[in-house]
Amino acid sequence: MRHFLSAADAGNIDELAEEALRIKANPLANRQYAGKRLGLMFMNPSLRTRISSQVAALNLGLEPIVLNTSGDSWQLEFADGVMMDGNKAEHIKDAAPVLGSYFDILGVRTFPSLRDKEDDYSEHVLNAFVKYSGIPVISLESATRHPLQSLADIITIKEQMALQEIKRPKVVLMWAPHIKPLPQCVANSFSEWMNAWRIADFVISHPEGYELDSTFTGNTTIEYNREKALKDADFIYVKNWSSVRDYGKILPVKERWMLTQEDFRNNPHAKVMHCLPVRRNLVLSDEILDSEHSLVTQQAANRVWSAQTVLSEILRGNF
Amino acid sequence: MRHFLSAADAGNIDELAEEALRIKANPLANRQYAGKRLGLMFMNPSLRTRISSQVAALNLGLEPIVLNTSGDSWQLEFADGVMMDGNKAEHIKDAAPVLGSYFDILGVRTFPSLRDKEDDYSEHVLNAFVKYSGIPVISLESATRHPLQSLADIITIKEQMALQEIKRPKVVLMWAPHIKPLPQCVANSFSEWMNAWRIADFVISHPEGYELDSTFTGNTTIEYNREKALKDADFIYVKNWSSVRDYGKILPVKERWMLTQEDFRNNPHAKVMHCLPVRRNLVLSDEILDSEHSLVTQQAANRVWSAQTVLSEILRGNF
Amino acid sequence: MRHFLSAADAGNIDELAEEALRIKANPLANRQYAGKRLGLMFMNPSLRTRISSQVAALNLGLEPIVLNTSGDSWQLEFADGVMMDGNKAEHIKDAAPVLGSYFDILGVRTFPSLRDKEDDYSEHVLNAFVKYSGIPVISLESATRHPLQSLADIITIKEQMALQEIKRPKVVLMWAPHIKPLPQCVANSFSEWMNAWRIADFVISHPEGYELDSTFTGNTTIEYNREKALKDADFIYVKNWSSVRDYGKILPVKERWMLTQEDFRNNPHAKVMHCLPVRRNLVLSDEILDSEHSLVTQQAANRVWSAQTVLSEILRGNF
Repeated sequence: MRHFLSAADAGNIDELAEEALRIKANPLANRQYAGKRLGLMFMNPSLRTRISSQVAALNLGLEPIVLNTSGDSWQLEFADGVMMDGNKAEHIKDAAPVLGSYFDILGVRTFPSLRDKEDDYSEHVLNAFVKYSGIPVISLESATRHPLQSLADIITIKEQMALQEIKRPKVVLMWAPHIKPLPQCVANSFSEWMNAWRIADFVISHPEGYELDSTFTGNTTIEYNREKALKDADFIYVKNWSSVRDYGKILPVKERWMLTQEDFRNNPHAKVMHCLPVRRNLVLSDEILDSEHSLVTQQAANRVWSAQTVLSEILRGNF
Repeated sequence: MRHFLSAADAGNIDELAEEALRIKANPLANRQYAGKRLGLMFMNPSLRTRISSQVAALNLGLEPIVLNTSGDSWQLEFADGVMMDGNKAEHIKDAAPVLGSYFDILGVRTFPSLRDKEDDYSEHVLNAFVKYSGIPVISLESATRHPLQSLADIITIKEQMALQEIKRPKVVLMWAPHIKPLPQCVANSFSEWMNAWRIADFVISHPEGYELDSTFTGNTTIEYNREKALKDADFIYVKNWSSVRDYGKILPVKERWMLTQEDFRNNPHAKVMHCLPVRRNLVLSDEILDSEHSLVTQQAANRVWSAQTVLSEILRGNF
Repeated sequence: MRHFLSAADAGNIDELAEEALRIKANPLANRQYAGKRLGLMFMNPSLRTRISSQVAALNLGLEPIVLNTSGDSWQLEFADGVMMDGNKAEHIKDAAPVLGSYFDILGVRTFPSLRDKEDDYSEHVLNAFVKYSGIPVISLESATRHPLQSLADIITIKEQMALQEIKRPKVVLMWAPHIKPLPQCVANSFSEWMNAWRIADFVISHPEGYELDSTFTGNTTIEYNREKALKDADFIYVKNWSSVRDYGKILPVKERWMLTQEDFRNNPHAKVMHCLPVRRNLVLSDEILDSEHSLVTQQAANRVWSAQTVLSEILRGNF
């Protein structure tokens, strides 16, 4: 039994993405899992992950059951040894093994507090499901990672590489402004997967102070000069994240960091990626999102094949 | 590809209702759509529409996936060109094509603000899903119409016409009091469908000031005298709506407009219809709802066949 | 047609539990109910009941559709004859028959107010669904009972009896402290089922003032001395409930009533049960929940077989 929590669980990433493209070409070829169940537990709102996971499961004959921890159920306690006299009615130690008895695979969506880095980066919430459920756990986005998104991103890049006949793409992860402090998970995860994939020239570009945790970026080139970063880029992955150093904070940034049409002068074939949801004209302009540069819908559509591939591999015992 | 948004999308209404009656007689005859998905997106609460749509889909083998935009996900932005720095996290331009990639058909439930008639009557929310999703869209009730309800209403009337051997029924849409301003959509839609169906003598009766928009009523007789309206009526469709002229307002009404047992003195065989939910003893009395006059449960039950017929026609490419 | 609301609906309880164990051994042997639907209506949060009912239905091929009355829909009115000018938009008299037309079986979860004993103990909410829906109704926990839990409890006890070769177990229902006033339904129901099962020596132990309603306990021995109650116990069912006499209140209790490791000195093989959710170190200590004494996960896992057995019996017309 194995889980799907990070790039380390993916095995050979390029082969996994190839498998996803085969599944995309023939989505209903493997509908053999009737009688098996996927639990999908959401601790915060979700649109793409929620629906794409259900579609992926149904494509395999697997029966998805969704649970929202706010509304459908109650808040869970994750701390060890506490006397539970507050607003949390059930401990993960009791809830997780029960879920483990109901489901064959459990997908869990958690989120960071953005207040305590050590706490968030320990992934204690996701890890508690792994520790206590007794079944394979799939991250539907966690405090520090979003591996199903990263796999969908690589599927999307591979499709474009085939179309444009690109052998070794230059991929830039580029910070963008936002009005609210956002998690680092998509940026962390994309960095981790790019580095594990090893097929792209990968550069991260952001204002000073927005350095990601080196656990995820490793030896990746950080280019503070966005013009230099964009030069010859094939793929520009735009994403906001809050500061890691000054944890969860929005730092003042003087320069313009929103991508505009001008940024494509020297690379008119460059494609723009974003995991969605995206705030238009704040993170990315209408001009770019509605242009041929944008791959955002394709990325989101590929979330089905990303999820279906991972579910399929777990069900076949390939992890 | 075609949508189901109004009577204009229904083709020959009497034939569509006949098809619904055939489906009702044999609901599981066409369970061939496994592997296809119906997305059901609710922007406000729903009981009948929510469940009847799921049952209709399951009867066809179609897999329904429900999404509540409040709770499950987040608020969507529908305005063009705005900088999204408020409380709306995603634009319909980005969300709709993603939903279009996940589903084969998309059902959408929207509601009017009742503050700005032009805005509500533009149906810009529903139309945005049509414009950007790229797949057939079914209205699960919109700002100005409720076509699945209207089709269920006509199915119900046809069943009674057969039972009572009525060739050309007199159908009265009759305003009733309410404590809150309600949308005009059920009344609009019923008027539109009655006029397109052409098989009934259709009369609308309401206090002055409650005139519906002529887009929906056309040349329908408006009878302000409720006694005259009720004379020889075979079907009395009771429904409250707020004023169109003084948009979204409740106007003072001196006369009694709640239907009572006395109103059946001259037409003891008349049947009473309402789309539900109904506030008892405010809109309709216990006396009438619990009597043989009431068709309200049958109407609601027929929502399954209304939805299944429309889904089936879209899937067979008959629209 | 029959309902499942209390022990009285269970027929021979030991045979029903035997059937559940057969189903547990071969869960997918009877997947023949495609095209039939189970409605699951929740008026308050739920984790085990919500998921186990869905899994049980899917095991039978039955299609479950969940409705939360808060969020998905609106509040229902249950009082007769009132003018509905408040915050309740639909009467049970109208909603229930509609649900009855959509579903083959209806599961309903209600809860007590804990303010008015007569009102709660009348079970008027659950009974209204029985009265007006026209289809078999299953209690998913009601104001005064939780029969699917009690059946799962007996399944769990029977499994242990076989393992430990116990012919006639001593079963103690033992009150435990809590910070909030809780319903009596689990304790009521367990008492009722134990007495109807007749295979155990059943004792109830609690502080004075916490006597359960005799409708449920009948002639059961009440032992206020917890040490005496625990002597030779094979199964200790720990559960908090609020006072029945001083209805819905928490009474001051001087003695220690939380179970500790010391309580197992004279019966090291005793097993501890609880229906979950349990507040750790308030109702039961980590020490006990994480020990070999605990059956709580097994009890919760057995909820699937409890629900599947009841659904199966109703579908086969055995009730």
